[in-house]
Amino acid sequence: MKIAQVAPLWERVPPPSYGGIELVVSHLTDELVRRGHEVTLFASGDSQTLADLKAVYPLALRLDKYVQDYAGYETLELSQVYQHAAEFDIIHSHVGIRALPLASLVLTPTIHTLHSSFTQDNQKVFRYHHQQPYVSISKAQRQIKLNYVATVYNGIEPNDYPFVAQPQEPPYLAFLGRFSPEKGPQQAIAIAKQTGWRLKMAGKVDVADSQFFEQEIVPHIDGQQIEYLGEINHAAKAELLGNAAITLFPINWQEPFGLVMIESMATGTPVIAMSLGSVSEVIVHGETGFICQNYAEMATMIPAALTLNRQACRQHIENNFSVNQMVNDYEAVYKKIINNRIHFNGYFDTAKARF
Amino acid sequence: MKIAQVAPLWERVPPPSYGGIELVVSHLTDELVRRGHEVTLFASGDSQTLADLKAVYPLALRLDKYVQDYAGYETLELSQVYQHAAEFDIIHSHVGIRALPLASLVLTPTIHTLHSSFTQDNQKVFRYHHQQPYVSISKAQRQIKLNYVATVYNGIEPNDYPFVAQPQEPPYLAFLGRFSPEKGPQQAIAIAKQTGWRLKMAGKVDVADSQFFEQEIVPHIDGQQIEYLGEINHAAKAELLGNAAITLFPINWQEPFGLVMIESMATGTPVIAMSLGSVSEVIVHGETGFICQNYAEMATMIPAALTLNRQACRQHIENNFSVNQMVNDYEAVYKKIINNRIHFNGYFDTAKARF
Repeated sequence: MKIAQVAPLWERVPPPSYGGIELVVSHLTDELVRRGHEVTLFASGDSQTLADLKAVYPLALRLDKYVQDYAGYETLELSQVYQHAAEFDIIHSHVGIRALPLASLVLTPTIHTLHSSFTQDNQKVFRYHHQQPYVSISKAQRQIKLNYVATVYNGIEPNDYPFVAQPQEPPYLAFLGRFSPEKGPQQAIAIAKQTGWRLKMAGKVDVADSQFFEQEIVPHIDGQQIEYLGEINHAAKAELLGNAAITLFPINWQEPFGLVMIESMATGTPVIAMSLGSVSEVIVHGETGFICQNYAEMATMIPAALTLNRQACRQHIENNFSVNQMVNDYEAVYKKIINNRIHFNGYFDTAKARF
Repeated sequence: MKIAQVAPLWERVPPPSYGGIELVVSHLTDELVRRGHEVTLFASGDSQTLADLKAVYPLALRLDKYVQDYAGYETLELSQVYQHAAEFDIIHSHVGIRALPLASLVLTPTIHTLHSSFTQDNQKVFRYHHQQPYVSISKAQRQIKLNYVATVYNGIEPNDYPFVAQPQEPPYLAFLGRFSPEKGPQQAIAIAKQTGWRLKMAGKVDVADSQFFEQEIVPHIDGQQIEYLGEINHAAKAELLGNAAITLFPINWQEPFGLVMIESMATGTPVIAMSLGSVSEVIVHGETGFICQNYAEMATMIPAALTLNRQACRQHIENNFSVNQMVNDYEAVYKKIINNRIHFNGYFDTAKARF
């Protein structure tokens, strides 16, 4: 198949450190190429890919302080994609609402993976384009009614996450993720302090969250019980998770997927998480972690989580959340969409009115 | 003709106070309806128009503090416009780059009026879509090479600006515009202080300019020599300009049009302006105002400007910058584009590759 992958431009593909969407796009794109597809990746110019790279800007936009208007570059990227739509059998958009008005104006079908939660504002656009074909990344993500054609869970490459049979001594809890209130780093700290466990934390701090970070996190970092490792690269991430006794996922929002859970389990480390969003689809309760109703319960489950079989955690990811599995699922979606083009993308209905 | 007018959503059409684009769209739309065209106006739901109003949101977005993602609503607006493209003979976009990727994907031609200056970011998108048909609002605005099909100056309704034969006593200078450094309110103050003239100022202060306003403007406002009237409505604006002896236009950027110049001259008040952007196309030097090379020269020209014929200022606007003239020009553009559709909008070139 001739496939266009359309990635956001803020971060390169794959991301040097944090960037869930770009990591998924990278794995998907490269594996599709390995399977013999002709793939064009629309992404920032510093992206590294086996596919044919088309870039409207040489750098990930977050790295260029002279870029004022992010959306302008996205407009340019989407211009290129849809001007060349006829060259592809399918367009796979990872950029959300901006591709929607364009998608129904060309003959080539577009499949939209929903990587984020719905907002008050963006759901109006999705609802308007409800006939477009969507892939959700969890069942829990389907908060509004759209033409969902599949749920495809994000996949990682298990080999990129070395299995660690025995966690490091002295043992510690891990937190990895953006330092924003909804990811719950402040709750991870509270659980560590309450139970006397060590906690190692890593992840980026967005500008919007800098006040939260300074006020709620920094005062607790002592370099002993509570450590902050900064924004770390892949190797450091795998090490942080693999050597941990348990990873905490103390979210307080409807997380649409939560990549860090599968990254942790891949290294053998079970996850204790709040029962929100995708969590119950990703963790096998009592086997690869524990799904809790509140933060007190999360703290309580630590002893039980230490007894879980780390090999079972690894196996769960290999079986259900590998790149291989994800690409199998997307290939099936592409075939289905192309075969059902008329029904699914609504193009011919629109066209009838025009010609 | 069946015409779609696509307005920005930040402000309603017409704007209650400041909002150059929305004012022009309002005049254009209503006059086209009066001339018998079927016009659909895509704009905020609180807009007032003779046309058929299509709104994706009930309020001007600037009035709703719950709206987080302005661009999402613009995406929704453009979705509606282009899903219904076949119902129009021509689409007239006033929203800049966001309409560009859509415009070349449908059969109905779109004409894009450039209401702003080019930026480092947005000019990349315009250049990519250089074959689309553009209208510039001054010759000076044409800073990059595009398929310009006409210059159409903004027009106002002279009757909305009562002619004032004799300025108020004691006399004052007027400044009207956004309080941002490039509009030069700080220079207007300097000129007033240097010459001992009274200065009355009005206009809005954007959030981005609040520091500038507090530091550079507020300390000079004494309610006597230097007055600030706030963000004022149309009637107050016409009064402020009409009763003034002279209006200052002390810009220090390439202003693409500068509506306040024609509003002032319509009331009979000559304008002393910096020689930048559109100024030399709008003011007749030595007849309806003076065009200066620096701020010192602006101060020097005040006595001469007092001797100019206020009736000549009025006449200049009636002859060259009326709504009537503007709509004549746009009607001519629409006819030209529709007749030359294949050549100008490039659709069939694109289409060839697809079908």
